[in-house]
Amino acid sequence: MNPELSLNLQAEKIVERMIEQAPILGITVKELGNGSKILDATFGGYRAGKLFAEVCMGGLGEVTLTSLEFSSLSLPGVSVSVEYPFLACLASQYAGWSIKVGSFFALGSGPARALARVEKLFEELKYEESADRAVIVLECRNAPSEEVANYVAQQCRVKPENLYILFAPTASLVGSIQIAARIVETGMHKMKELGFDIKKVLAGYGTCPIAPIAKDDLQAIGRTNDCVLYGGKAFYLVEDNENLIADIVSEVPSSASRDYGAPFLELFNRYGNFYDIDPMLFSPAEVYVNNLTNGKTYHAGQHNLEILQRLLS
Amino acid sequence: MNPELSLNLQAEKIVERMIEQAPILGITVKELGNGSKILDATFGGYRAGKLFAEVCMGGLGEVTLTSLEFSSLSLPGVSVSVEYPFLACLASQYAGWSIKVGSFFALGSGPARALARVEKLFEELKYEESADRAVIVLECRNAPSEEVANYVAQQCRVKPENLYILFAPTASLVGSIQIAARIVETGMHKMKELGFDIKKVLAGYGTCPIAPIAKDDLQAIGRTNDCVLYGGKAFYLVEDNENLIADIVSEVPSSASRDYGAPFLELFNRYGNFYDIDPMLFSPAEVYVNNLTNGKTYHAGQHNLEILQRLLS
Amino acid sequence: MNPELSLNLQAEKIVERMIEQAPILGITVKELGNGSKILDATFGGYRAGKLFAEVCMGGLGEVTLTSLEFSSLSLPGVSVSVEYPFLACLASQYAGWSIKVGSFFALGSGPARALARVEKLFEELKYEESADRAVIVLECRNAPSEEVANYVAQQCRVKPENLYILFAPTASLVGSIQIAARIVETGMHKMKELGFDIKKVLAGYGTCPIAPIAKDDLQAIGRTNDCVLYGGKAFYLVEDNENLIADIVSEVPSSASRDYGAPFLELFNRYGNFYDIDPMLFSPAEVYVNNLTNGKTYHAGQHNLEILQRLLS
Repeated sequence: MNPELSLNLQAEKIVERMIEQAPILGITVKELGNGSKILDATFGGYRAGKLFAEVCMGGLGEVTLTSLEFSSLSLPGVSVSVEYPFLACLASQYAGWSIKVGSFFALGSGPARALARVEKLFEELKYEESADRAVIVLECRNAPSEEVANYVAQQCRVKPENLYILFAPTASLVGSIQIAARIVETGMHKMKELGFDIKKVLAGYGTCPIAPIAKDDLQAIGRTNDCVLYGGKAFYLVEDNENLIADIVSEVPSSASRDYGAPFLELFNRYGNFYDIDPMLFSPAEVYVNNLTNGKTYHAGQHNLEILQRLLS
Repeated sequence: MNPELSLNLQAEKIVERMIEQAPILGITVKELGNGSKILDATFGGYRAGKLFAEVCMGGLGEVTLTSLEFSSLSLPGVSVSVEYPFLACLASQYAGWSIKVGSFFALGSGPARALARVEKLFEELKYEESADRAVIVLECRNAPSEEVANYVAQQCRVKPENLYILFAPTASLVGSIQIAARIVETGMHKMKELGFDIKKVLAGYGTCPIAPIAKDDLQAIGRTNDCVLYGGKAFYLVEDNENLIADIVSEVPSSASRDYGAPFLELFNRYGNFYDIDPMLFSPAEVYVNNLTNGKTYHAGQHNLEILQRLLS
Repeated sequence: MNPELSLNLQAEKIVERMIEQAPILGITVKELGNGSKILDATFGGYRAGKLFAEVCMGGLGEVTLTSLEFSSLSLPGVSVSVEYPFLACLASQYAGWSIKVGSFFALGSGPARALARVEKLFEELKYEESADRAVIVLECRNAPSEEVANYVAQQCRVKPENLYILFAPTASLVGSIQIAARIVETGMHKMKELGFDIKKVLAGYGTCPIAPIAKDDLQAIGRTNDCVLYGGKAFYLVEDNENLIADIVSEVPSSASRDYGAPFLELFNRYGNFYDIDPMLFSPAEVYVNNLTNGKTYHAGQHNLEILQRLLS
């Protein structure tokens, strides 16, 4: 990985652009008493969603809007290309930091995670950066307070005035877009869980439908997951000398999970919580892995039209 | 709507970029005696078309080129995302200003309309801006004269040297692109005509084929309309507490019109003029409306392959 | 053609951006003793590939990533729009300069060709530029030496410190992308070979799958060609008063060649060299040509699913 590369500084550049274009993007910006900048993307539009998602990847990915066709159903979707997916997706985009301050709770993603390093995942990743500014992204409905900002800044070892917090609820256009843009990340995480050394992944590309906005955040959690699990597609370029990928690729798509086949919300209702849902379910519907060592491309899974159609109902 | 947002100032930024990149884009720029800047996009290429279309939306939309597939037919098309579609599409992009000065006639679109406010539509929209510079877009073959520029500047209450006029004929690549990019606007206008409060529309996305360039402007009017009416698709996000959209969505696509089914030029020849063609015909072939109040998405219409195939003949 | 337009200066702007963003793009930059700048894109990602390809076209084209669907096979691909295709594709992008210095050999493309003008092609093109800086793109595995740089600079009549050399091997992500992005160029070249006056081509657009990375450069040559010949699609806008295009369009796609139907590598093995393969094979699988003189669009060829599927094996 490139030593000159700072996920937080790259993300900050995009955030500064968002602040400058806030009126167009439909986002509001405010500064807390401690100097932290809060970007509220609850009412953001398509371009806000694109930039929000690129911040999540620490500037190491590009998100484009596209139309995705599934037989007679078509949905706006994202096309996502990722550089250094190990950094972009796992050290930054993965929503792995549970931020709990008083009654406030949200899952944190974005490059600030690589400064705080409070997750066990970072022991495995062995990636650390030492930027003096931090960018965190929260999936939540209410603006984080100064107390939350102070906590995050402290965990990241940056001054509160050098902290940017972006947030949007799940049931919002920006929420739908930024989750769809996790399509490459979801497969990265699944490959890691399957024991694959994800540092072997050199590049990633994916497409995923943008979930129609739900009536509340719970329904939105269901739909945004359904888009990934039943409509998402990811391509990985790996350098894997032992070709270990060949043995696991059939396990990578969501269809390899015992819980495959039902809408996510139905699974949630069946189990009564998120934690009993098979963690192996969380991956793209369809996966291609191209190993440049032998030139072969392995392919598994496919989209599920029946469940995608229920996104409209 | 955001008070900091000026459609004309946003458009001016894009126009300044077009002037700077004129040699690449294939456009020519000249200054009239009164200081108005004229951008002639008659021979502009794909990127000129993209920027031209973004100017029409006052900077509140993004246009990307894409390939659209209709069975065995594929055509280059636009993918358009729109912020504040009420402003972008109706207060700016809609070609609602009939500009007639001496023997010169052209339909005007773009943000200057929101300064001039000569159309009845603006009484309904209740939107006004007070920028000191104006950007108007004309669909015409001959460069507007200083007299035309003076008239437009006066109607917009800006100094002639603060007026930008962009133009391109219908039968040109830029003409085809900027009309295709009206796909979201066309459905906005139709929903308004059906009595829907279009301020409820929070975001829009659409795709539309770029009509092959016609041999003359009349044939081009036919084809560019056919692309929208028989090949265009639009998605709207609405916040509609009473769910009134559910009752009208089936009326939104072009197929709801009595004149649906014939190429536009054939209709023109049948009626002998544009004004007797059913105004309800003017809308995308296919429409999705997602109401975030109840989370449902309503879908109506579909493309018409047979008529699209005639675009090549 | 626009006299203000310099392919090399346009390309230089993109190269400067690549140098600035090198850590994100995954490219390395070094300066040779003679001051020439070398950009090694061997390990570049998707965005490096996009910019690399745009440099090849002298800044006169735009490359976007997209997902291309061929029945059940889907592959990341490029969407390419081209301004002044005669300049972008033939005077710049075409890999027509055989650079041989000592034991070093590579095919050169990019705008430096229009300075060096060592190819017979330039006599036909009658295009010349006189920039004081040169940008050359090489498809090769090993970094060019100072001797190579001196040779190129001298042929281009620029100082070595004003020369930029970009390179990437065929079997690399950047290699796959930049070759896919030649889709419009390939058809331009074929039309020229068929005797069509390619100055009549006003604009071009195309899509082409990005070949999965091969295990070595020979396999990569096979695959990248297969993507163009069996999966590429190009659209041309021409102004052709005598409508000569109508007579040749059926000859333009690869399927018009006697060698059509076998993977490129199989043809190479059959003939034992590249030079005996039918030169008429090198063109897009599918071609549309829109003549604005009569408004008609001519269509020939189609993709070949069977051969595309072998890209994964």
